[in-house]
Amino acid sequence: MPNEHEYGYFTEADSAEVVVARNKNAESERLKQVMEVITRKLHEAVKEIEPTQDEWLRAIFFLTETGQICNEWRQEYILLSDVLGVSMLVDAINNRKPSGASESTVLGPFHVAGAPELPMGADICLDRKGEPMFVHGRILDTEGRPIANAKIDVWQANDEGFYDVQQKGIQPDFNLRGVFRTGADGRYWFRGVKPKYYPIPDDGPVGKLLGALGRHPNRPAHLHYIISAEGYDTLTTHIFDPDDPYIDSDAVFGVKKSLLAEFRPVDDAQAAAAVGLAAPYYDVGFDFVLSRAKQRDAAAA
Amino acid sequence: MPNEHEYGYFTEADSAEVVVARNKNAESERLKQVMEVITRKLHEAVKEIEPTQDEWLRAIFFLTETGQICNEWRQEYILLSDVLGVSMLVDAINNRKPSGASESTVLGPFHVAGAPELPMGADICLDRKGEPMFVHGRILDTEGRPIANAKIDVWQANDEGFYDVQQKGIQPDFNLRGVFRTGADGRYWFRGVKPKYYPIPDDGPVGKLLGALGRHPNRPAHLHYIISAEGYDTLTTHIFDPDDPYIDSDAVFGVKKSLLAEFRPVDDAQAAAAVGLAAPYYDVGFDFVLSRAKQRDAAAA
Ligand SMILES: [Cu+2]
Ligand SMILES: [Fe+3]
Ligand SMILES: [Fe+3]
Repeated sequence: MPNEHEYGYFTEADSAEVVVARNKNAESERLKQVMEVITRKLHEAVKEIEPTQDEWLRAIFFLTETGQICNEWRQEYILLSDVLGVSMLVDAINNRKPSGASESTVLGPFHVAGAPELPMGADICLDRKGEPMFVHGRILDTEGRPIANAKIDVWQANDEGFYDVQQKGIQPDFNLRGVFRTGADGRYWFRGVKPKYYPIPDDGPVGKLLGALGRHPNRPAHLHYIISAEGYDTLTTHIFDPDDPYIDSDAVFGVKKSLLAEFRPVDDAQAAAAVGLAAPYYDVGFDFVLSRAKQRDAAAA
Repeated sequence: MPNEHEYGYFTEADSAEVVVARNKNAESERLKQVMEVITRKLHEAVKEIEPTQDEWLRAIFFLTETGQICNEWRQEYILLSDVLGVSMLVDAINNRKPSGASESTVLGPFHVAGAPELPMGADICLDRKGEPMFVHGRILDTEGRPIANAKIDVWQANDEGFYDVQQKGIQPDFNLRGVFRTGADGRYWFRGVKPKYYPIPDDGPVGKLLGALGRHPNRPAHLHYIISAEGYDTLTTHIFDPDDPYIDSDAVFGVKKSLLAEFRPVDDAQAAAAVGLAAPYYDVGFDFVLSRAKQRDAAAA
């Protein structure tokens, strides 16, 4: 005997099944699957929360305002995804690495394509502002062998927590950005300034939500890297300052334990001179391990 | 020994716990609870779907566009809630009735406050367009006793599926709307026209989604009611035409089995004259049962 939901009639108990059954003619199996999961989890959430009509309407308004504040340079829905940990989860799912390879984290909105390729050792700080920093390490494969001709695209905020693109006319173009290529030893090194933590935009609906949740909008100080080499999976990641006041509370959950670097203060004029800086400076050493393209396929299988 | 997520460091396995732990200082326990459920269900969904970065970005754009099409007369997020069955679920959760009471359904966007109070039997069709319909029934309590002085606020689309407010200047103001009050016998009756199915707005992101899901945007023909009486729970509901082509596939899942009426064709000049109409006409009889305010509290307890 057919029951109510086979006719498409709504019941509270079968609410998700009634909706999902309606999508049987979806244009693709993938869309059908995605909407089945979204519908089921959404109905589970509503049944667990039991929102009042007023709470439901406040959620409708929140979602509406989150869309309406978006424009060509502001993407509030990505921010929402970020502060709910969804961006990091999607990154993790799409970048599972074999054991021993460096972990990824989110790209963030401040990458600029076409940063200048610089000679190894160059100073990416173009305005001599902030505390000098020497960054170095190796690009290795999972057997610990150096990777030659790896491309290292690095970018960072300045000592006040701003990227060049946020301060056009104040910072020089391409300040604190550079592209480097490893030689046969797989080593990289360059000079910059110690970055500072910075807030994500918090003057919109997502910032209000963070405030209501008793959360701050800050990301702990970090350096961004995209490291690529032929035959290896491209690695998009950051390294973090473990002494940053927000290291345990990154607003977007980008910190992974394996990505904590050490920003070691060095007050030794001879050491400073050897790396082309004045003392005191910060020494940051960090090796990255790339997975082979085929290793990743094997891990996914 | 503290583990990574106590420090707030992200791991794929503990992703939801890491995020939820961050909300411990939320401004209210209710907000903390709501965000805990939303975060957990959202992460469960992402883990089950395993979206690609591109799929994630398409979802971001969909949510953004759904907000951006909203304006003072268009609320696309309510439409999204409607077509995912969420509006009906929230309605059901907030309007659980004791056994024997009439079921609710969603209010919809076309109710107008301040419709004229009319003498029982009035014709709410002001432009003589469409197939005449006689609607009648009783307002009862759960013991089957008539409720006197019940207020019946009724509104409907016309024979082309449009409400007056959608056709200002074409339909007269307050066409197919009226407010009636029962006498001691609890009976109501009025004249109108047989309503037609109509589409929800489908020229936006939600309409595109419906199309991709192989779904039409139509709502089967119905009459809207808000019925209120002192000492009883206000009932917001529809009654539906079971012969409508979309009765089993209401785009917003508003149909409940108990809300199927009968639109009985009558081709009898004498019967028609008795109700002030010309034959043929449709006869629609439907009784509503209101729950006492305290009965509802008992059901909820
Ligand atoms: Cu009848
Ligand atoms: Fe950054
Ligand atoms: Fe309607």
